[in-house]
Amino acid sequence: MDPNSSYLPGLSRRVLLSALAVAPAVIGPLRATPAWAQGTDPLPSWNDGQTKTSITTFVARVTTQGGADFVPPAERIATFDNDGTLWIEQPMYVQLAFILDRAKALAPQNPGWKTKQPFKAVLDGDLRALAASGEKGLMELVAVTHAGMTAEEFAKIASDWIGSARDHRFKRPYTELVYQPMLELLAYLRANGFKTFIVSGGGIEFMRPWTERVYGIPPEQVVGSSIKTRFEMQDGRPVLFRLPEINFIDDKVGKPLGINQHIGRRPIAAFGNSDGDLEMLQYTTMSGGVRLGGIVHHTDAEREYAYDRQSHFGKLDKALDAAAINRWTVIDMKNDWKRIFPG
Amino acid sequence: MDPNSSYLPGLSRRVLLSALAVAPAVIGPLRATPAWAQGTDPLPSWNDGQTKTSITTFVARVTTQGGADFVPPAERIATFDNDGTLWIEQPMYVQLAFILDRAKALAPQNPGWKTKQPFKAVLDGDLRALAASGEKGLMELVAVTHAGMTAEEFAKIASDWIGSARDHRFKRPYTELVYQPMLELLAYLRANGFKTFIVSGGGIEFMRPWTERVYGIPPEQVVGSSIKTRFEMQDGRPVLFRLPEINFIDDKVGKPLGINQHIGRRPIAAFGNSDGDLEMLQYTTMSGGVRLGGIVHHTDAEREYAYDRQSHFGKLDKALDAAAINRWTVIDMKNDWKRIFPG
Repeated sequence: MDPNSSYLPGLSRRVLLSALAVAPAVIGPLRATPAWAQGTDPLPSWNDGQTKTSITTFVARVTTQGGADFVPPAERIATFDNDGTLWIEQPMYVQLAFILDRAKALAPQNPGWKTKQPFKAVLDGDLRALAASGEKGLMELVAVTHAGMTAEEFAKIASDWIGSARDHRFKRPYTELVYQPMLELLAYLRANGFKTFIVSGGGIEFMRPWTERVYGIPPEQVVGSSIKTRFEMQDGRPVLFRLPEINFIDDKVGKPLGINQHIGRRPIAAFGNSDGDLEMLQYTTMSGGVRLGGIVHHTDAEREYAYDRQSHFGKLDKALDAAAINRWTVIDMKNDWKRIFPG
Repeated sequence: MDPNSSYLPGLSRRVLLSALAVAPAVIGPLRATPAWAQGTDPLPSWNDGQTKTSITTFVARVTTQGGADFVPPAERIATFDNDGTLWIEQPMYVQLAFILDRAKALAPQNPGWKTKQPFKAVLDGDLRALAASGEKGLMELVAVTHAGMTAEEFAKIASDWIGSARDHRFKRPYTELVYQPMLELLAYLRANGFKTFIVSGGGIEFMRPWTERVYGIPPEQVVGSSIKTRFEMQDGRPVLFRLPEINFIDDKVGKPLGINQHIGRRPIAAFGNSDGDLEMLQYTTMSGGVRLGGIVHHTDAEREYAYDRQSHFGKLDKALDAAAINRWTVIDMKNDWKRIFPG
C-alpha cells in the first residue's frame, strides 16, 4: 500500500489518533544544578542544551526535599501520548496499518469484500477510495478487525501482528521504531519517583499487549480509546466480548477526561506531539505549581520524518502556537536527539 | 433520618451500590505451610481456621517461585468491592448518607425544595416518600449533590464531609468503620507482591479523596461508578466540570467491564459481599489457574450487622449460592473475625 497518507485525512481522526512540538522553551528560571550534570547522564541520547536542561531542571525542582517546588512521589504523575511521541506515526498510524493488514487477512473468508467498499479499497490498495468511504467506512473496518471476538482473542491477534509486521521504510518491527530518547526519559522519570502513564488516542487494547515489554508501562497504566464490551459466558467461562461500538475516544478534550477517569490525579508532566494533545498539556501545565509540558517536534526527515502544521497524521498546529505561549518544552528531534531509535 | 433503610430498596441499586458471603470453602487442597504459621501472623484479627487457611494457602501457592501455581508479581492483581466488603454499608450506603446530608446543606439556597419532591422527602426525613420518587428522584438528588461543580470542588466537598460526618450507631467517622481484618488482608497481599484495587459500585470521585489514607490504595487504583465531565476553561484554568449524567455504572456485569477498562488484566483474587460482585467473582475465579474468590458474609448483628438474602443494601443471594458451587471463601464475620473495626 502506498505509504503516502495524503488520502487518509479526517478518516482516522476520531478512531485512531495522537500529540505536539517547536521552539525551545524552559520551565521557569534555572535554579538547581541539573541531575545529569552531577553524575552519570540519565539521558545520554539527548544533546546538551536548553531542551534537556528544561527536563532535568524540572525533575530536580520537584524532587528536592524541602524545596519550594517539592512534589511528593505519589503525586508525580507523568503522561505520554503514544503515536508520534513514543513511536512513529508516519506514513500512517501503526494501528491503521494493523487494520489494513487484518482486513486483508480476513478477506479470503469474506469473498463479498472484493466488490464492496470500503473493503475493496483495502484489497486494491486504493487509498483514495478508502478515504472516500469516510468515517463510516473506517468504522466498518474497525468493526470487522477489532470487534466480534473476546478481549483475550483480540490481545492475541494484536500481539501476533505486532510481532510479525514490519515498517516498509525501516524494515523493522514497529516496537523497535520507538524513540530511544523517550525511553530514557520514561526511565529517568521513574527513577525519580514518577509513575508513567500512556494517554493515547490509539486503542487501549491494541497497546496493552506490548507496552510493558517495550516501555516498562504495565496495562493498568495505559489509557486509550476503546470499544464497548459485553460480559458473557462462553462454554462456562466468563469473557468480555468486543462490540462494534465506540466506548470512549481518548483524544483532544477526551485526554483530560481519560486521565481523570483512569488516574484521578492531575499530572505534573505531560508529553505529546500533536493537536490531539493540546488539552492534556493545558490540563497538566495550567494548574499552578511547577509543571512540565513537552512536545516532540518531528523535524528530521532524514532520520525519521519532518511534519507539523499540514500533516494528516499527528497534525501539530494549534499546540505549536500554544507551546510558545505556555513555555512548553519543544523537542526539536533533529537537533535535540543524538539518535532516534534503539540499537 | 431513620436509619431503617427498608424504604430505600431499588432506589440506589443503579446509582450507588456494592459484593458477597456464607459457608466455609477452601481454594483447592492445602499443600503449603501457611505463611502465617511460619512466623509472625500477618492476619492477627482473623481467627485460625479454614477461612484464614484458604487465604494464606492461596498466597503461598501463587508466590512460591518454581511452584506449579506461581504467578509473576505483575499479574498479582487483587480487586475489592468497597461497601460491605471494606467498610460498612448499613443502615444505608455511606454515599447515600452523603447525598442526604448534602441536599440538606444546600436546602437554604433552594427554598423551593420545601414543597418539591424528592427534596421535600429528604428535608422531612420521609424515607417512604423518597423511595416513592424512585430512580428518577434519586438521580435528581445525585444531580444536585454530585454535579454542577468542578472535579476538584467535588473532591473537597466529599473530603470535608467524610472528615466531619459520624455514623449514628457507632458515633465514629465512616473511615473508622472499615474492617480491620480486611485492612490486614490488603497489607498482607501487597506485602506478597499483589497490586490491590477497589472495584466498587460507589462513586469513583467520592472514594478517591480518602482511599489512599484509609486503605493504602491510591486514586489510580480505584474503579467505580461515575458521571460525565466536560473539559472547560474557567478563568483561564482548565477544569473538569461535573455533569448530571451517568457515565458508567460499576456494578454487576459492569465490574468485569470496569476491571478490563481500568486494569486490563484479569484479577487472580477478588473480594466482595453482595450480588453486585457476582460477575467480578466469576470473571476472576472461573478462568483457569489457582484463584481466590472471597465473600464477606455479614453474620454479626452484635458487633456490626447481620443480613444477606433479604437486605436492601448489599443483598447477598445469588452470589451466596454461587459461592458454594465455585468454592469461594465465605468469610463468616462473626466466627472468622476477632475484631471488626480498628482501634
